[in-house]
Amino acid sequence: MGQVVAEVTVVPLGTGSASLSGYVAEIERVLKAFPRLKSMLTPMSTILEGEMDEVVEAVKAMHEAPFRMGAMRVSTTLRIDDRRDKKITMAGKLNAVREKL
Amino acid sequence: MGQVVAEVTVVPLGTGSASLSGYVAEIERVLKAFPRLKSMLTPMSTILEGEMDEVVEAVKAMHEAPFRMGAMRVSTTLRIDDRRDKKITMAGKLNAVREKL
Amino acid sequence: MGQVVAEVTVVPLGTGSASLSGYVAEIERVLKAFPRLKSMLTPMSTILEGEMDEVVEAVKAMHEAPFRMGAMRVSTTLRIDDRRDKKITMAGKLNAVREKL
Amino acid sequence: MGQVVAEVTVVPLGTGSASLSGYVAEIERVLKAFPRLKSMLTPMSTILEGEMDEVVEAVKAMHEAPFRMGAMRVSTTLRIDDRRDKKITMAGKLNAVREKL
Repeated sequence: MGQVVAEVTVVPLGTGSASLSGYVAEIERVLKAFPRLKSMLTPMSTILEGEMDEVVEAVKAMHEAPFRMGAMRVSTTLRIDDRRDKKITMAGKLNAVREKL
Repeated sequence: MGQVVAEVTVVPLGTGSASLSGYVAEIERVLKAFPRLKSMLTPMSTILEGEMDEVVEAVKAMHEAPFRMGAMRVSTTLRIDDRRDKKITMAGKLNAVREKL
Repeated sequence: MGQVVAEVTVVPLGTGSASLSGYVAEIERVLKAFPRLKSMLTPMSTILEGEMDEVVEAVKAMHEAPFRMGAMRVSTTLRIDDRRDKKITMAGKLNAVREKL
Repeated sequence: MGQVVAEVTVVPLGTGSASLSGYVAEIERVLKAFPRLKSMLTPMSTILEGEMDEVVEAVKAMHEAPFRMGAMRVSTTLRIDDRRDKKITMAGKLNAVREKL
């Protein structure tokens, strides 16, 4: 398995407040332990670029963060875009669209 | 219903090429017909900000674009983040996380 | 636009309890107002079959249900599978896989 | 990490045919190598129940299946529902909703 681009959303449920930014910040901090991954924070998710196995390990760690902060239930969504005919990158995907606009 | 932030991914299936950027470019062009919506292209999706009903109309239009280009099957994913205790915006969501980092 | 199969998940955020089944039950009740739609409750979602426009109206109504019950933030995910070369149904999709197993 | 309920969708892109059931059947066959996982095929996904690490290994294996069949690009979506205040099961989730209907 090689490089993938993946999108992750980690949502604690039943926390008692509609604000989730404190949890999202903690989830971002977890990524510091994965320096080989590129990451991009968007208003709806975190996008990761790197080796499949390292992405998966990062997602497992991100998923644990809200539990450490007291959440009793966490819903984590991961979408993996894996292409084997050419190297896939976040910048390459954006550029390919922009060239055509 | 008021303002929401929403994430959209429109994927044509069975097109015969692993490259999808031409379809994504056409889907982005569809958004020109919805000037009241803010949009942000990410490497994994398009994020929209605006009134719920207008977001839904835009997503329906984006979903039709690959069919016009010849696709026979389209998978469209929409995730809506709707908050009623305060106004929700793409910038506000990002800022709330960044303040805590 | 014609018939689609769609998957819906409506999740209230910040409710103060890790249990969400009361909300899911209310979301299911909303579907009684859409008798032309077929629906299937799974452990992770509700799957709908019917005309695109009616599916979208149902999803909007399902999305409002947790707000009526007091939630201040709702995350709704909709994935639409739309096929134009043949009629798409929940049963047809399952049967096509089972024939090949 | 303990037991989770998770939903998986593995979609090959650019295959040249709008029909995907042959790929879905192969992805289901991969699950035979994971006998401790419970699984349920729905019209939109496969739902798994079991230990987090085993679920993740199964998803990695499912994700490889379309590549073995010749696909050059695969989009895999995984949503994990993880609850730590009580044991989570597919049957328990459905029953909790049905009791309230």
